[in-house]
Amino acid sequence: MTDVLDRLMANIVARQGADPASSYVASVFAKGCDHALKKVGEEAAEFIVAAKGASLGQDKHLAVKEAADLWFHSLIALAQQGLNLDDIKAELARREGVSGHQEKASRPQ
Amino acid sequence: MTDVLDRLMANIVARQGADPASSYVASVFAKGCDHALKKVGEEAAEFIVAAKGASLGQDKHLAVKEAADLWFHSLIALAQQGLNLDDIKAELARREGVSGHQEKASRPQ
Amino acid sequence: MTDVLDRLMANIVARQGADPASSYVASVFAKGCDHALKKVGEEAAEFIVAAKGASLGQDKHLAVKEAADLWFHSLIALAQQGLNLDDIKAELARREGVSGHQEKASRPQ
Amino acid sequence: MTDVLDRLMANIVARQGADPASSYVASVFAKGCDHALKKVGEEAAEFIVAAKGASLGQDKHLAVKEAADLWFHSLIALAQQGLNLDDIKAELARREGVSGHQEKASRPQ
Repeated sequence: MTDVLDRLMANIVARQGADPASSYVASVFAKGCDHALKKVGEEAAEFIVAAKGASLGQDKHLAVKEAADLWFHSLIALAQQGLNLDDIKAELARREGVSGHQEKASRPQ
Repeated sequence: MTDVLDRLMANIVARQGADPASSYVASVFAKGCDHALKKVGEEAAEFIVAAKGASLGQDKHLAVKEAADLWFHSLIALAQQGLNLDDIKAELARREGVSGHQEKASRPQ
Repeated sequence: MTDVLDRLMANIVARQGADPASSYVASVFAKGCDHALKKVGEEAAEFIVAAKGASLGQDKHLAVKEAADLWFHSLIALAQQGLNLDDIKAELARREGVSGHQEKASRPQ
Repeated sequence: MTDVLDRLMANIVARQGADPASSYVASVFAKGCDHALKKVGEEAAEFIVAAKGASLGQDKHLAVKEAADLWFHSLIALAQQGLNLDDIKAELARREGVSGHQEKASRPQ
């Protein structure tokens, strides 16, 4: 039985190249890379606003919705480059044996 | 058998309240909400730069690494509010019966 | 003779509370703080995309337009909190006697 | 008599190519375009967090400091592409005769 994230990814890939009027995902693909990345920035900002609001007593569920939107749009942007959820999972799996402090130290500043 | 994202989430939750010197995740928790959200913005920017670069012929795998970092830090920020990966999955599952165009229309501008 | 940034700021302040249909600035004010901050994130992403594109040979002027949009929306967001361009200038003037390395060291990580 | 923003811009340009150890600005130039754009994203996130916090009763001056940081780093990123503050001012001046609603309608979605 597949996970909802796997189903979402499959759904995104299936809509690549479809008529932009047929679905929201198809319309984002049709607008191209710059548009999808603008949406990632917009959703990141909405997540930041919602999480900061939650920390000060506002509706916590809004942060969840914005996180879902952020992940969704980052998957579309990855799909535009021929990448997908399995690539993220493989990268996270690769890091499992490595501490975060080591991971950070291994990267260019 | 668990998915790597589930294991990552469990790992994050387990480190909440731990000695900041003991792990990178514990150090982010200790610095608080504003710091975690700054990291979300930083990782979103790095993802945007890497994906734009990939669209113009640069290393595609960098976009995957930055997406993994973005998702990782957004999970830490959710955990700080008592939320987690299952909340994102539940939100995405709730949307499965709804088209993206309907979803967008249902939300405040 | 005033600078264009001063005129822009005066223009923004003059539209606070005006009929949302009367101008774009009035419509952003009417939608509230979260909306203005979402726009800041969106414009930051567009600036990042355009500047990265410029570094790889794409149109440089697009980066200028996105920077103008980013500054414009950050001024609206400041105005919503009763702050304005003179506050930014005063902060920058305060830093003139301080090196950037000192400034950075004086701030919480 | 020059404006503080003009002085800041002149200062940034003067440090391009200088020894990275000599100033913070020189160190950002030395790290390259991707690093400067990461800083723009980080500062945008910090501004969003601070402005959202200010809207809910937290320190307003923090939003000013973060706006100053955001503008400062966006000027460095522009300078890396051979662009500067005068380009932003020219773009804003060009828009003075155009309503924001017209401006928005003239742009690709």
